[in-house]
Amino acid sequence: MSNKLNKKPVNGMKDVLPREMEIRSWCMKVIRENYKKYGFTEIETPCVESIENLSSKQGGENEKLIFKILKRGEKLSSALMGEGAKEENNLADSGLRYDLTLPLSRYYANHANELPSPFKALQMGNVFRADRPQKGRFRQFMQCDIDILGEPSNLAEIELILATTSTLKKLGFNDFTVRINERRILRAMAISCGFEEDRLDGVYITLDKMDKIGLEGVESELKEDGFSEEAVSAYVGLLDGLQKAEDPLAYLKEKLGESLEEGVCESLAQIKESVLAAGSDGFEILFDPTLVRGMGYYTGTIFEIEMKEFGSSVAGGGRYDKMVGRFTGNDTPACGFSIGFERIITILLDKDFKIPDEKKKVAFLLEKGLPTDKLAQAISLAQQRRDAGEQVLMVRMNKNKKFQKQQLEGEGYEEFVDFYREALKN
Amino acid sequence: MSNKLNKKPVNGMKDVLPREMEIRSWCMKVIRENYKKYGFTEIETPCVESIENLSSKQGGENEKLIFKILKRGEKLSSALMGEGAKEENNLADSGLRYDLTLPLSRYYANHANELPSPFKALQMGNVFRADRPQKGRFRQFMQCDIDILGEPSNLAEIELILATTSTLKKLGFNDFTVRINERRILRAMAISCGFEEDRLDGVYITLDKMDKIGLEGVESELKEDGFSEEAVSAYVGLLDGLQKAEDPLAYLKEKLGESLEEGVCESLAQIKESVLAAGSDGFEILFDPTLVRGMGYYTGTIFEIEMKEFGSSVAGGGRYDKMVGRFTGNDTPACGFSIGFERIITILLDKDFKIPDEKKKVAFLLEKGLPTDKLAQAISLAQQRRDAGEQVLMVRMNKNKKFQKQQLEGEGYEEFVDFYREALKN
Repeated sequence: MSNKLNKKPVNGMKDVLPREMEIRSWCMKVIRENYKKYGFTEIETPCVESIENLSSKQGGENEKLIFKILKRGEKLSSALMGEGAKEENNLADSGLRYDLTLPLSRYYANHANELPSPFKALQMGNVFRADRPQKGRFRQFMQCDIDILGEPSNLAEIELILATTSTLKKLGFNDFTVRINERRILRAMAISCGFEEDRLDGVYITLDKMDKIGLEGVESELKEDGFSEEAVSAYVGLLDGLQKAEDPLAYLKEKLGESLEEGVCESLAQIKESVLAAGSDGFEILFDPTLVRGMGYYTGTIFEIEMKEFGSSVAGGGRYDKMVGRFTGNDTPACGFSIGFERIITILLDKDFKIPDEKKKVAFLLEKGLPTDKLAQAISLAQQRRDAGEQVLMVRMNKNKKFQKQQLEGEGYEEFVDFYREALKN
Repeated sequence: MSNKLNKKPVNGMKDVLPREMEIRSWCMKVIRENYKKYGFTEIETPCVESIENLSSKQGGENEKLIFKILKRGEKLSSALMGEGAKEENNLADSGLRYDLTLPLSRYYANHANELPSPFKALQMGNVFRADRPQKGRFRQFMQCDIDILGEPSNLAEIELILATTSTLKKLGFNDFTVRINERRILRAMAISCGFEEDRLDGVYITLDKMDKIGLEGVESELKEDGFSEEAVSAYVGLLDGLQKAEDPLAYLKEKLGESLEEGVCESLAQIKESVLAAGSDGFEILFDPTLVRGMGYYTGTIFEIEMKEFGSSVAGGGRYDKMVGRFTGNDTPACGFSIGFERIITILLDKDFKIPDEKKKVAFLLEKGLPTDKLAQAISLAQQRRDAGEQVLMVRMNKNKKFQKQQLEGEGYEEFVDFYREALKN
């Protein structure tokens, strides 16, 4: 006999056991059905993308985490023979996608003529990142994104937020906060205080920590990073004023003046009011000038949903009007919102969530060696009950029938029917 | 501006457009719901498996088609520095799965203690094969498998066939044939005629073509391949007798005598009768001694579903009692049935299939520059109708509204509501 094979999944990836899978399938069904009501249509792209697209600087830090796929046949032979054989990038011509946004942009660029405009896309699919394995984070995980392509107005943002908040409610969540901001506000705030154009990302990284380190922490960290006293003090003054302002958007509009494009504050205010028009049961929506969001591709509005109860963000997104243009040469307005699917699943598993409206589960226990006519009887009965919507398990009766039934009860079976070789007994 | 990125999917893989995706999602839902009624529970394994497992001779020809994933970091550096740098297999430590059967066997070996026994698994997932690209065949495609692990009796075969045939009926198919055979019958037939043990695969390859080349074709091909005249003539006699026999299983039992293990023919007969007991509307089930099925891992019953209308097999499977043992050292009875998901989708697309019970689709057309209160009104109305189960698209009104509505009608929108800046007009 040959050596035993390896029972474990590859490093950092996981097998999904039945209980978790049931919850995953249920969530996917709820998400799919609800987004559909908002006019989103589901699409799919391959898990594999060309290495050029994956390395095009649209993925930020994720580009360091790509699983690369080895070239094949002729291409591999010549790569191995050539001078570049020792170069990683000569050996791979494709890789596993690290998100769904880059593939969507490619998809839209490729198929725009066949798609409605604007195009409202739903994607649920696995993405892959060779992150250091750690608790609760896996190297293959599900992303669940909605995006609207070809809609320049804030109707896109409004619909994305309405669709996502209503979906979270359908998944049973009732206490969350939608925070919105604008990359152009972030920028105007920093520029108007005198920070240098090419060091803005550094300012944002510190600002992003304000909920943890407070205004004083922001001040001292910016100073440590060598930004000018004047800029830092102007910035801290602005942030302080914002915290105290009754209407932060009006305050900003006044303070930033011409540094800020016309209409940015008004648009954010309209998003907020419009979302509330659909009813705000279970959540609040607020403008948060310290919201940054990491991805470099965002160009306008950014948003995030936080659940205080679980101390973490469960959804995030924003506008990225420049990415499709990388494929077509012409910019296309684009805006997306991604639910943190794996986070949602972890929360539901942790709170021992029960799926509503489960079908009745019945087990038919068949004594071993049942003659064909008796077996046929059992099968025919099972078929009738399955047709009527029940879940019927047909299983051979074990010697220890009592123990077997206890185990089946543990799996949710509520009714048992025994079938014996001889006339009925008990 | 940097160079344009590549709009096309990687070679041999495809983007799924909305119409196809709708049918795919609907099929997955029907499949999931129906299999659940038979007590199958859904599970998932990673798309990536270790290269050792993928190359363990369980995948036959598919092992030549593995997409291999490049090692990373330290492991890659040392592979590139070492002597084996030119060796493909030193550069990769994992790869994309080419089927769902090998990962399931690994999964069961890894989790048997946490799973019910017998364990009835449903898997729907993508698999990857670097096949030569050709029409209708892609390098990433969906497989849809049910398997029963830990059930030695033919109750496994019966349940698999019942569940699969009823699922095909739910998908709208009504005229198909289930063909069943047994690896042990194939073997006994060949051995009893005097073919050599180590050349049986060659005999099967020819037998498999009998529906195309006929009995005479089988005879001449076997002779050309250099098999002995005596063996070929005995084999052809046996096949001829089978074709003429009223009860082929009884005929075989008599002819093969002790070459065939006790109970094999009786078990096949019982499978057939039991399946018919649940009702045979829309399909027939028959014993076919020429059914071979390619995979080397099958150890007992094998089966296939054919749709004459579409001239092809749409599902196939069989018993593979030796694969789990490769992981654990102890054999576990296992039997599976796989629906040709991509084949089903192609058939449904070709016949312009309409999904039953679609929700009403309504489009709200919003004039540009709608003030917040009017926008809020539209949103509130949309929300009410969405809550009531309708699908409502909110979209900005184009200048050519008539053309826009025609396009929306093409996408299935049946009702239109216009919202204007000023008081209602028409």
